[in-house]
Amino acid sequence: MDIQNIHKRLRDFAEARNWQQFHSPKNLTMALAAEAAELLEIFQWLTEEQSKNITDSEKYMALIKQEIADVFIYLARLADTLGIDIEREVLAKIELNEKKYPEELSKNSATKYNRR
Amino acid sequence: MDIQNIHKRLRDFAEARNWQQFHSPKNLTMALAAEAAELLEIFQWLTEEQSKNITDSEKYMALIKQEIADVFIYLARLADTLGIDIEREVLAKIELNEKKYPEELSKNSATKYNRR
Amino acid sequence: MDIQNIHKRLRDFAEARNWQQFHSPKNLTMALAAEAAELLEIFQWLTEEQSKNITDSEKYMALIKQEIADVFIYLARLADTLGIDIEREVLAKIELNEKKYPEELSKNSATKYNRR
Amino acid sequence: MDIQNIHKRLRDFAEARNWQQFHSPKNLTMALAAEAAELLEIFQWLTEEQSKNITDSEKYMALIKQEIADVFIYLARLADTLGIDIEREVLAKIELNEKKYPEELSKNSATKYNRR
Repeated sequence: MDIQNIHKRLRDFAEARNWQQFHSPKNLTMALAAEAAELLEIFQWLTEEQSKNITDSEKYMALIKQEIADVFIYLARLADTLGIDIEREVLAKIELNEKKYPEELSKNSATKYNRR
Repeated sequence: MDIQNIHKRLRDFAEARNWQQFHSPKNLTMALAAEAAELLEIFQWLTEEQSKNITDSEKYMALIKQEIADVFIYLARLADTLGIDIEREVLAKIELNEKKYPEELSKNSATKYNRR
Repeated sequence: MDIQNIHKRLRDFAEARNWQQFHSPKNLTMALAAEAAELLEIFQWLTEEQSKNITDSEKYMALIKQEIADVFIYLARLADTLGIDIEREVLAKIELNEKKYPEELSKNSATKYNRR
Repeated sequence: MDIQNIHKRLRDFAEARNWQQFHSPKNLTMALAAEAAELLEIFQWLTEEQSKNITDSEKYMALIKQEIADVFIYLARLADTLGIDIEREVLAKIELNEKKYPEELSKNSATKYNRR
């Protein structure tokens, strides 16, 4: 994935419309959460089984693709605005998770999910 | 960004813990939205100005990096599970947006944001 | 429910701490969405069946009660700040929904949920 | 606010359409979060100042009223499904917060908001 190209395209897009004024980190987190919620809305009344079979529906898949793109776009804008290297942070987080949830202790267990 | 490597790392991570059982598309959208909300929580009481200056705070930046990674991780898992090519969809969405918001008509305008 | 008392308690609470400065409608929607996401987090890896049986778990129920209260608190603050009468709007919305989804046409159907 | 009446109206509405099948606590948290995000979307590009002046816009206020009603409706459904008394939990939470954030220590301070 050419993330530098995506950052540039999004930056140019915002600049050409003078929309950087709207893209404060605060506002971008709102837009990101709002787009993530569009995905929630698609799946909210489906069973888990139906959610797995959604790949059979062209109509839903077209919608999901757009929403995934929207979430990515605001996440990329946020990272770019703050000078954060997404790939580096993702790899660091994966390594952290590998230590935090040792295979044998975490196997099959929802313990992770009871962290509170 | 080596997205195929990230997909593989996340897949291996889930498989080693037998956590694919939790990763239905429905559940992944919930996790994605929950992680996006962690970013909201960081910025909710800050002014937009303060949000721009957050790069000065090592403590907050460390937190934001982790939350951005978390959002990305669940987005990548969701896309991988559904066989969606994120980069392709992002570029398609950018092109769509370029047509939807012509530069001259959209300049400086928040009209986009009044779409309802 | 004595909603006027709740509004007053929350108003007094904010005033005593000089926190009204943080409670712009914009910020309150962020806090509301962040609290709603705490509920998501509790349920994200549970099956629907497990989610129905969560009433058996004192620990989870204690947590859910607090999160429901938090969502309500920010919703009440938002409504109070904007001078909105929640009960009136809820009853109006229920009547709207009754017209929008006629019993016979909507029975058993997830059509509502495919509104896009 | 006659919350028992609201619970009853919503229960009857769901039953008449056989929609209780969709209203597992898990699904209701998704619907709740999705509706909360609709409020985010309204405010995401506004300044805090603009968000305070939104009461001047009939069009936006009509929209906000509906979204506040939607959030309330799913919150009420969730509480009703789980047998939770919202008012009681809200008052308990306010008392908890009063102890957690003593007036003198919390005055003017965003410390609350840096709890991580």
